[in-house]
Amino acid sequence: MRKVAIVGVGMSRFGEEWTRGFRDMLIEAGSRALSDGGLHGEEIDGIYVGTMAPGSLVGQEHIGALVADSMGLTPTPATRVEAACASGGVALRSGYLAVASGMHDCVVVGGVEKMTDTPGEEVASALGGAGDQEWELFMGATFPAIYALMARRHMKDFGTTEEEMAAVAVKNHSNAAKNRYAHFQSEITLETVMKSKPIATPLKVFDCSPITDGAAVAVLMPLDKAKKCCEKPIEIVASAQASDALALHSRASLTEVKATKIAAKKAYEIAKLKPSDIDVAEVHDCFTIAEIMAIEDLGFVEKGMGGKATAEGKTALSSEISVNTSGGLKGCGHPVGATGVKQAVEIVWQLRGEAEARQVKKADMGLTHNVGGSGATAVVHIMKRGY
Amino acid sequence: MRKVAIVGVGMSRFGEEWTRGFRDMLIEAGSRALSDGGLHGEEIDGIYVGTMAPGSLVGQEHIGALVADSMGLTPTPATRVEAACASGGVALRSGYLAVASGMHDCVVVGGVEKMTDTPGEEVASALGGAGDQEWELFMGATFPAIYALMARRHMKDFGTTEEEMAAVAVKNHSNAAKNRYAHFQSEITLETVMKSKPIATPLKVFDCSPITDGAAVAVLMPLDKAKKCCEKPIEIVASAQASDALALHSRASLTEVKATKIAAKKAYEIAKLKPSDIDVAEVHDCFTIAEIMAIEDLGFVEKGMGGKATAEGKTALSSEISVNTSGGLKGCGHPVGATGVKQAVEIVWQLRGEAEARQVKKADMGLTHNVGGSGATAVVHIMKRGY
Repeated sequence: MRKVAIVGVGMSRFGEEWTRGFRDMLIEAGSRALSDGGLHGEEIDGIYVGTMAPGSLVGQEHIGALVADSMGLTPTPATRVEAACASGGVALRSGYLAVASGMHDCVVVGGVEKMTDTPGEEVASALGGAGDQEWELFMGATFPAIYALMARRHMKDFGTTEEEMAAVAVKNHSNAAKNRYAHFQSEITLETVMKSKPIATPLKVFDCSPITDGAAVAVLMPLDKAKKCCEKPIEIVASAQASDALALHSRASLTEVKATKIAAKKAYEIAKLKPSDIDVAEVHDCFTIAEIMAIEDLGFVEKGMGGKATAEGKTALSSEISVNTSGGLKGCGHPVGATGVKQAVEIVWQLRGEAEARQVKKADMGLTHNVGGSGATAVVHIMKRGY
Repeated sequence: MRKVAIVGVGMSRFGEEWTRGFRDMLIEAGSRALSDGGLHGEEIDGIYVGTMAPGSLVGQEHIGALVADSMGLTPTPATRVEAACASGGVALRSGYLAVASGMHDCVVVGGVEKMTDTPGEEVASALGGAGDQEWELFMGATFPAIYALMARRHMKDFGTTEEEMAAVAVKNHSNAAKNRYAHFQSEITLETVMKSKPIATPLKVFDCSPITDGAAVAVLMPLDKAKKCCEKPIEIVASAQASDALALHSRASLTEVKATKIAAKKAYEIAKLKPSDIDVAEVHDCFTIAEIMAIEDLGFVEKGMGGKATAEGKTALSSEISVNTSGGLKGCGHPVGATGVKQAVEIVWQLRGEAEARQVKKADMGLTHNVGGSGATAVVHIMKRGY
């Protein structure tokens, strides 16, 4: 298989974008990505787009063709992929495979979700489809409730505290405040999180990622070709994905995401790296407890120490491992299908040294980690400079 | 890229399956496919599943993980793909790429849709998401209306008659009556079609494919490996896909599906074949006019002659080209995401000589043709015996 590089990236401003639709955001992110890579539409020969629930949220399916159509890229083959909140990561992996295999030479990978056109209850119901609809959502287990169970068990088994979880939100808001594309543009204090409204105890509103609109796009090419036509190609050195039971009650452990561990192990093997080689990582913090489990499952900290490490600043900008420099799902926002692609966009910016006020000092090796539902899908990518 | 073969196929009985859910049908089709290929679950290292609108129809997304989970195949990477009614065909193509590239060695490709748990109006609304929601469905253009416009124009430009369209339904019901997995098990007469209730003139209820539940599964392996472990591998000799504008009003012609022509041209080039080399084809007859356009766009008959050819029996079993021997979408039923995979299952049976009472005399080269919406996606696969 061929080596693959990201040659252009772009995103729309994440937020509550009431005046802009699905297509507008995609066109904005796509135009920026093509322009960033110095590419023209005619060069694109494949499209993959990740989006979770456009059928329920905006009444539109057939999203691959929609992207090809609205970006003026027909008759390019266009495929939508879905793996709940990991849809963007799976789209990136699909694009990676299409280029690595030699089937396509220049692939647009998009991620998008339009969430704020829909009443809150319907959004919660649509998002519930990421879990086991029959055995979780139908019984009243929404996603905050499911992650609250995981948080409770993590607190019991490892002594993790609510303050440590809050520290994830404080860090990620601080990073988001340095990211002009982020949904939230202001820093918050530990007190703000601790005093915020309970959603599913112990999770409070500031432990939860927001409902966000947004799109992100990355353009992929074979590395050898990218080196000739592109100034700063970023090589994808590993792509790995794993599945697990859809329902939390079917899993062996409540305090780890097994699919993350399996995908990460495989990615490290492919890249011939260990967790300590990673400088900067975008991980899936749909809730603060999720980031704590992620940094443990990815091997950045010892099992059970994720909360403590975060509270001690070990995952802050330019520390041992810089986690969620974009602001993560918590601070940058979580337009579900866009998130996995946005993670790649942020890592590309960090590796290129273009991350503005949130640029980490040493950024040689980056990782993205995207989770679907409460852990039934996990996708891990590792990237480094290809120049 | 490696050559790829289908080594096992299976499907659930298509129909109004009120006592069986999404998972039941998948498990049934999947078990049959694994058993057919003499395979065990542990051999599977990749899963792709095509389904169009499970979020709107049964409140469930994250379908890749659901399949891995319910078939006992975790932690195998599992990805759902969607391209409206072409979801199954795109899933087959994704599985083909995964095996051809060397990323996976044994891939389950599933297609599924559970449609009859949902009230009719909601189904129509969900299916409308295959077109342009903002500019077609919202304005009242449901799919029968969109295909009725195409039919009217075909009648005006080429003199196609309602009786010729009805002949498609009569043929496909006749084939379905010979297929124990088909939704409809009885033959119909031209008079039945002509006297049936108008849906969107000139289309009557018997010109339309039904609302159906069902699942279909195919298992893919590299051809060289398949030859060693499998009795009757069927080689996929070409896979091609194209996109077009989502809305009918944005296309250059109402009487052809440009994406079909582009995908077919590419598939014939890859396979080094011409249309007349194909013996048996499963084409996308969501409405009778769609089959007429398909056999023209695929090059089986001259442009404008599709209706006449059908009425003259040129597409009947064991004629010049046997079209929709399974009964097609019209007779076998159209569980949207399952259709593209079911087409492959039927072609495998025909090429192996296992199609029971509907077996065609000469079946050396087969083709599947799956369309999304009114033509914004088209996928074409060509297959032959690999033994």
